[in-house]
Amino acid sequence: MHRFLVVHGPNLNLLGVREPDVYGSETLDRINASVEALAKELDVEVRIVQSNHEGKIIDEIQQARTWADGIVINPGGLTHTSISVRDAIAGVDIPSVEVHLSNLYAREAFRHESVIAPVCVGYVAGFGAESYRLGLRAVCELIKPGESEKVGK
Amino acid sequence: MHRFLVVHGPNLNLLGVREPDVYGSETLDRINASVEALAKELDVEVRIVQSNHEGKIIDEIQQARTWADGIVINPGGLTHTSISVRDAIAGVDIPSVEVHLSNLYAREAFRHESVIAPVCVGYVAGFGAESYRLGLRAVCELIKPGESEKVGK
Amino acid sequence: MHRFLVVHGPNLNLLGVREPDVYGSETLDRINASVEALAKELDVEVRIVQSNHEGKIIDEIQQARTWADGIVINPGGLTHTSISVRDAIAGVDIPSVEVHLSNLYAREAFRHESVIAPVCVGYVAGFGAESYRLGLRAVCELIKPGESEKVGK
Amino acid sequence: MHRFLVVHGPNLNLLGVREPDVYGSETLDRINASVEALAKELDVEVRIVQSNHEGKIIDEIQQARTWADGIVINPGGLTHTSISVRDAIAGVDIPSVEVHLSNLYAREAFRHESVIAPVCVGYVAGFGAESYRLGLRAVCELIKPGESEKVGK
Amino acid sequence: MHRFLVVHGPNLNLLGVREPDVYGSETLDRINASVEALAKELDVEVRIVQSNHEGKIIDEIQQARTWADGIVINPGGLTHTSISVRDAIAGVDIPSVEVHLSNLYAREAFRHESVIAPVCVGYVAGFGAESYRLGLRAVCELIKPGESEKVGK
Amino acid sequence: MHRFLVVHGPNLNLLGVREPDVYGSETLDRINASVEALAKELDVEVRIVQSNHEGKIIDEIQQARTWADGIVINPGGLTHTSISVRDAIAGVDIPSVEVHLSNLYAREAFRHESVIAPVCVGYVAGFGAESYRLGLRAVCELIKPGESEKVGK
Amino acid sequence: MHRFLVVHGPNLNLLGVREPDVYGSETLDRINASVEALAKELDVEVRIVQSNHEGKIIDEIQQARTWADGIVINPGGLTHTSISVRDAIAGVDIPSVEVHLSNLYAREAFRHESVIAPVCVGYVAGFGAESYRLGLRAVCELIKPGESEKVGK
Amino acid sequence: MHRFLVVHGPNLNLLGVREPDVYGSETLDRINASVEALAKELDVEVRIVQSNHEGKIIDEIQQARTWADGIVINPGGLTHTSISVRDAIAGVDIPSVEVHLSNLYAREAFRHESVIAPVCVGYVAGFGAESYRLGLRAVCELIKPGESEKVGK
Amino acid sequence: MHRFLVVHGPNLNLLGVREPDVYGSETLDRINASVEALAKELDVEVRIVQSNHEGKIIDEIQQARTWADGIVINPGGLTHTSISVRDAIAGVDIPSVEVHLSNLYAREAFRHESVIAPVCVGYVAGFGAESYRLGLRAVCELIKPGESEKVGK
Amino acid sequence: MHRFLVVHGPNLNLLGVREPDVYGSETLDRINASVEALAKELDVEVRIVQSNHEGKIIDEIQQARTWADGIVINPGGLTHTSISVRDAIAGVDIPSVEVHLSNLYAREAFRHESVIAPVCVGYVAGFGAESYRLGLRAVCELIKPGESEKVGK
Amino acid sequence: MHRFLVVHGPNLNLLGVREPDVYGSETLDRINASVEALAKELDVEVRIVQSNHEGKIIDEIQQARTWADGIVINPGGLTHTSISVRDAIAGVDIPSVEVHLSNLYAREAFRHESVIAPVCVGYVAGFGAESYRLGLRAVCELIKPGESEKVGK
Amino acid sequence: MHRFLVVHGPNLNLLGVREPDVYGSETLDRINASVEALAKELDVEVRIVQSNHEGKIIDEIQQARTWADGIVINPGGLTHTSISVRDAIAGVDIPSVEVHLSNLYAREAFRHESVIAPVCVGYVAGFGAESYRLGLRAVCELIKPGESEKVGK
Repeated sequence: MHRFLVVHGPNLNLLGVREPDVYGSETLDRINASVEALAKELDVEVRIVQSNHEGKIIDEIQQARTWADGIVINPGGLTHTSISVRDAIAGVDIPSVEVHLSNLYAREAFRHESVIAPVCVGYVAGFGAESYRLGLRAVCELIKPGESEKVGK
Repeated sequence: MHRFLVVHGPNLNLLGVREPDVYGSETLDRINASVEALAKELDVEVRIVQSNHEGKIIDEIQQARTWADGIVINPGGLTHTSISVRDAIAGVDIPSVEVHLSNLYAREAFRHESVIAPVCVGYVAGFGAESYRLGLRAVCELIKPGESEKVGK
Repeated sequence: MHRFLVVHGPNLNLLGVREPDVYGSETLDRINASVEALAKELDVEVRIVQSNHEGKIIDEIQQARTWADGIVINPGGLTHTSISVRDAIAGVDIPSVEVHLSNLYAREAFRHESVIAPVCVGYVAGFGAESYRLGLRAVCELIKPGESEKVGK
Repeated sequence: MHRFLVVHGPNLNLLGVREPDVYGSETLDRINASVEALAKELDVEVRIVQSNHEGKIIDEIQQARTWADGIVINPGGLTHTSISVRDAIAGVDIPSVEVHLSNLYAREAFRHESVIAPVCVGYVAGFGAESYRLGLRAVCELIKPGESEKVGK
Repeated sequence: MHRFLVVHGPNLNLLGVREPDVYGSETLDRINASVEALAKELDVEVRIVQSNHEGKIIDEIQQARTWADGIVINPGGLTHTSISVRDAIAGVDIPSVEVHLSNLYAREAFRHESVIAPVCVGYVAGFGAESYRLGLRAVCELIKPGESEKVGK
Repeated sequence: MHRFLVVHGPNLNLLGVREPDVYGSETLDRINASVEALAKELDVEVRIVQSNHEGKIIDEIQQARTWADGIVINPGGLTHTSISVRDAIAGVDIPSVEVHLSNLYAREAFRHESVIAPVCVGYVAGFGAESYRLGLRAVCELIKPGESEKVGK
Repeated sequence: MHRFLVVHGPNLNLLGVREPDVYGSETLDRINASVEALAKELDVEVRIVQSNHEGKIIDEIQQARTWADGIVINPGGLTHTSISVRDAIAGVDIPSVEVHLSNLYAREAFRHESVIAPVCVGYVAGFGAESYRLGLRAVCELIKPGESEKVGK
Repeated sequence: MHRFLVVHGPNLNLLGVREPDVYGSETLDRINASVEALAKELDVEVRIVQSNHEGKIIDEIQQARTWADGIVINPGGLTHTSISVRDAIAGVDIPSVEVHLSNLYAREAFRHESVIAPVCVGYVAGFGAESYRLGLRAVCELIKPGESEKVGK
Repeated sequence: MHRFLVVHGPNLNLLGVREPDVYGSETLDRINASVEALAKELDVEVRIVQSNHEGKIIDEIQQARTWADGIVINPGGLTHTSISVRDAIAGVDIPSVEVHLSNLYAREAFRHESVIAPVCVGYVAGFGAESYRLGLRAVCELIKPGESEKVGK
Repeated sequence: MHRFLVVHGPNLNLLGVREPDVYGSETLDRINASVEALAKELDVEVRIVQSNHEGKIIDEIQQARTWADGIVINPGGLTHTSISVRDAIAGVDIPSVEVHLSNLYAREAFRHESVIAPVCVGYVAGFGAESYRLGLRAVCELIKPGESEKVGK
Repeated sequence: MHRFLVVHGPNLNLLGVREPDVYGSETLDRINASVEALAKELDVEVRIVQSNHEGKIIDEIQQARTWADGIVINPGGLTHTSISVRDAIAGVDIPSVEVHLSNLYAREAFRHESVIAPVCVGYVAGFGAESYRLGLRAVCELIKPGESEKVGK
Repeated sequence: MHRFLVVHGPNLNLLGVREPDVYGSETLDRINASVEALAKELDVEVRIVQSNHEGKIIDEIQQARTWADGIVINPGGLTHTSISVRDAIAGVDIPSVEVHLSNLYAREAFRHESVIAPVCVGYVAGFGAESYRLGLRAVCELIKPGESEKVGK
């Protein structure tokens, strides 16, 4: 059975509480439940972690090298600055997908650029909790036999 | 039955021919077939158009105002410059999703910014033909009753 | 009798429908009627065209060289990017006035610059339909005998 | 009877003398006369002031709050730098129109941006003395009953 | 008894009138009264001036050299552009504190930088009238015997 | 009794040791003692934490949501880069004040901008340990009944 | 016999009319005649098209994939903005040469950069009609057997 | 006898007092005396004015049009921002020379650029009071018969 | 015996695994062994730490103040963003050397700048594990008696 | 008989040796032979010089003023920085053509701009040795009687 | 007797020939004669050199360390780029004055900045040959006994 | 026996004389002696050259192609601008190491970037004469058999 790491970056534990007009009113627990429901439907396993600590997130990504088939990551505020998280993903060489709850292009200009996305396969943003679910679908498709040669860098 | 407009921008008719190391080897016909297959599975209808003419694309988006429940658009080279396509989408006020075959953040810097994404609900990029399919799933979720209040701008 | 070309760029056919908080609630038909009314009052003739196609707009400007005494143009989303429309106006060498419904300086920064205005005589913006009427008045003044030497480039 | 403040910023008292190839050969007196003639025609009253002192201009704008229905202002060299004039206009909350004799986009790049225009309703530029007259017409239209809801910000 | 100059820059005389959602609803008179009340409490004397004229403000700062122990200044719109006010403060060499009613970092980007702050000891912003009172407290602390060596530049 | 969180960011534990010409010669212990003395005087309670770990600081801010009436934070080197600390403060929605020992505008250009200040009510900088005390006074004023409507954003 | 596509972008149909001090006094017809004369001399065939429509130009480039051995293109005002024309040329993978009548480096700064040149083999500019003839010579040399390995990218 | 206007901008009245390590220890009176001594030696007349008010300086420059043969101006802090002083000098069309006590290139970056110098004949900087004397010499040379055609703009 | 701290920043524990074409195929253990071998040869002692946590690295640098004669640090992805690590090094005031395995100038532009290097004595980059060894040699030279006055900051 | 100077800038003597994947495998001798062959065919004379010394190149250009009818120059690495070579060409006022072996727009961004091209008539790039031959043809066309009025600047 | 080095940078040997509308019609010989005449008048000695070779100019500046009391240098095109000439002047530590024939601020933007001026005492520009004479006067004043403390850096 | 070229760029012959607070008090002769001592210790041969002429340095690098195993170069002021030296090093394809006496990141911003480093293997900076010695060690390590595959680009 395929296994995936799902990472929530800093402050995502506040979901449903923090700025609901930006991030929606769903709590992290409900998002996780819906991700797990989809995992079940797709017949895969997920390990979900949230941390406000960049170092903890890097540790998790590094360890994923030994067990995971893919990563779905919402780096939160680290999206725009953490070259270390970028280097971690590039280093483990597992197909990764960046996801965001909100449409970053419709927010402040400093949120338009991602230093992490260049080392991911792709990204999904703007659909609330659904972004995670689409990201999980995407990474599942990626590891199907024969997919890698169909998709360009 | 819900109906959606799927737009392929300039040069996407060359798919499978043009730079396969960037865009994959699938032809536009095969992508369209897979989008239609998913539409059937989701029980919705799609109208698919491709054009190399910005004006034609604007016309199509404007007309969609009278019949479509959502738009999935890959603006191709217009992504980074066409304020007119942006204004068309903002003007018709139908939930729209921007999709790309490749991961734009992993390409030239001038492809990182999108002038169209700020007026879409969200975007999906990097998964080849699968990007369209994820985009269609996303826009279908968006028009489910009660969804609009769950997702922030 | 003097004759003028009035050009509406992309998406202006959506007026009254599209983002009324930005562009006002008047339809293009009503704006055109008010422009024609003023033309009558000033005893001039106007040909009014709208197109979402940059190429069509360039064609119209080029043809105006053979019949028109002046141009009033709202380039819409092309204002900020179309060097080709700029070159067309510079090429036909007819006094032209750029007009906008809204105050571009009060909107997104990418709307502050105009690549077309440098080859026009002047510009008017921010007064809704009245912008067109002021623009028509301005271009009429410009072609009065003896005016050209009073106004600098 | 409606009353308006017309402000000429620094150096505009030199008109007809200073760089006639840029600003035209009309003197300020003749421009004022033509503005007053139009005011008569439109059945409104105007108070016209010129000053080389930013502080004096701010004082005048502030006092206008107690008597004027609108402002027509050519801020001259203050256009590009005076956040204080901008704040004054924003503070008095009277509909204001920025006007310029010359087409600023056809001049040096540092003259393209205006820090004052964002707090005006609109702007008119490039038509010599006619710019003031078009500006006065515009502001008169703006205060007609029912106009405010027709024009977006 | 220690004596301080309190300077209100351009447009601050409009307080309570101008954009109350940005600057609060207190009038300048009430702010001045609260500053004077605090002065009494701290057993110091204040001279309060407001001017819309940059030159007047420079004159006042220069004269303060002969009588004042410190300056509290809200430069208003001059904050971001007046190198002359900056040079005046640097020239008189009296400890000065920059204050602002609103949080400039939460407003337009052009308000984030201050050309005056580098020659002040410190700054206080975002607390409405309270900013002035905190600024006065700060400058009083600064001139206490033995303070200068405790605080870095 | 009102309760406040006071946060010292990375390296502030070195105070009195590290670059005394920039930060003054007071130790963190003496600063904390003076903050606690003021708290007593103002009849409020403070919890003071210092950490070199961004994640730890985010955790503290998030927990403050359950008990604190306000936050006084000196983010140290995180001021200019930590979008995650910014998002944490925005997420807990408690009035926060940013403080700095030194006048950032008088230091390197990269220290002029703050990514955290836009989500605070205000900021105080340049007065050494006194900055914290002024910050605590400010946040106490903010939570007085009826204050929120007096201060603009 | 080798066959080549020669493309004239927007406004080049105005040649000899439009701004002769910039573009020379030759008409497009005379340029085309001289290109055809050279084609005859070099024993090759040319198809020459002019359009003001970006979409039309993209269509022509795409169709050239089925019949042409090379492309000579003067993109006119599209040179600096059309990522879609760039993508079309990159997509058809036929050796292409960008030509310009005038020396773009001696004109406005916004004309110095070309978004199309990076996907061409080379470019020629500044020699009036002769630029096209040099461009045709260049592309003929390129397709001679054994040439491709002599020239670097 | 030739007559010249010598202008000292804001804060120059503080000379000898303000930052002597930057501006030297000479007072403005001594500089003026040395300028007058040189005027006597060169057999010309000078009118010397100092003002902290930009408007006053513009007034003086404008009046110089009626009596002066040249201007020597040290715009002080206005050097870098006052487009109005620039426009005044350009408007009166008298040969002007910009002078500075200190070498602006050796100071803060914001002091490197001058918005006023482009409309002066030349500039002299870095020699303390001697800069004024060199400036006066320069402007005297400029108005010698036959000089204007020897020096390019 | 002299003692040194050697710091490996985030992701350096992946060495030999992560992107060997960029970082070489040596593992961190082998690098550490070669550093320790050199330490023995130079008759000094080293403490080597690796962490993915910025806060942990700051803690280590701070503690080094009490025992170490110098620091050799490869900040990894923190090189370009961590003002907190910079402040820590500046705060402890021990001679520090920045080292990198790869030649950062030959990689992405965002890796050219270092926010940490300005507070180090010097830096060494591009020689794989040898960079650490050269760095250790350098810092040993620096603490030789009489060296400090030979080398400028 | 017409005579031309052909200049090879720094490092072009390494051709065929240096980076053959960028510059092709032809040696400078073979390029010179092919240029001389074309010169013979066109019945003109060429003087060919190569130097790694900017000063030597300037000397040659200056001397060309006394004998040459045109210049073909590949400035090599000086293209992007040498204002002195630019000034030399502008100073001698002989029609000059800039040539490059490779397509600079397809290389690093710092190679896109040329400080020399603005003072040349035109430029040719991307065709290997053929670029020189096209450049020589171009400059020969330029000096044909009656050509100068056909080509714009 | 005091002795000075006068340096003419690249292309200044073309004076009177090259672009007389920019640089005037005087030849370098006549300028040198007028400089020598002034030297005689001031009772000092000058050594005048011109070179198109940056290295030669650096050699001359370095040798000046052994014999010259000051330097007057017109670096020509090296003004804007030669960090090596800058370092040479900084290295010899002789008072130097930068001079230019034309007003650089009134020319292309790339000529506004000088990398050499920051290490000179001052600069003089815009007065043709007179600039050299003013520069020589300035440097003579600088070495008068007691001058150094009157002028700030 | 391995042989290396050691290059000192412009002004390095002034060492010990020029700005000793930046570059240390050692003369170039002493540095060369210490480099030669290390060469002896490492059993290699060095040829050391210094020149103020960019062209001379390029010549030396080109000749090194025929005899040297590596290059150690301190390009001095050419570091930041000489694309020609960069191209020379790239052209000869010998492993090269860039060295600097001082820590460039701790100096002016224009010294942070190196146009030469991207084509070197690595760089060493900040250790005075020791930088050269570390650089020589580094290049010796590089040419040991089997090293090239251990170090990434």
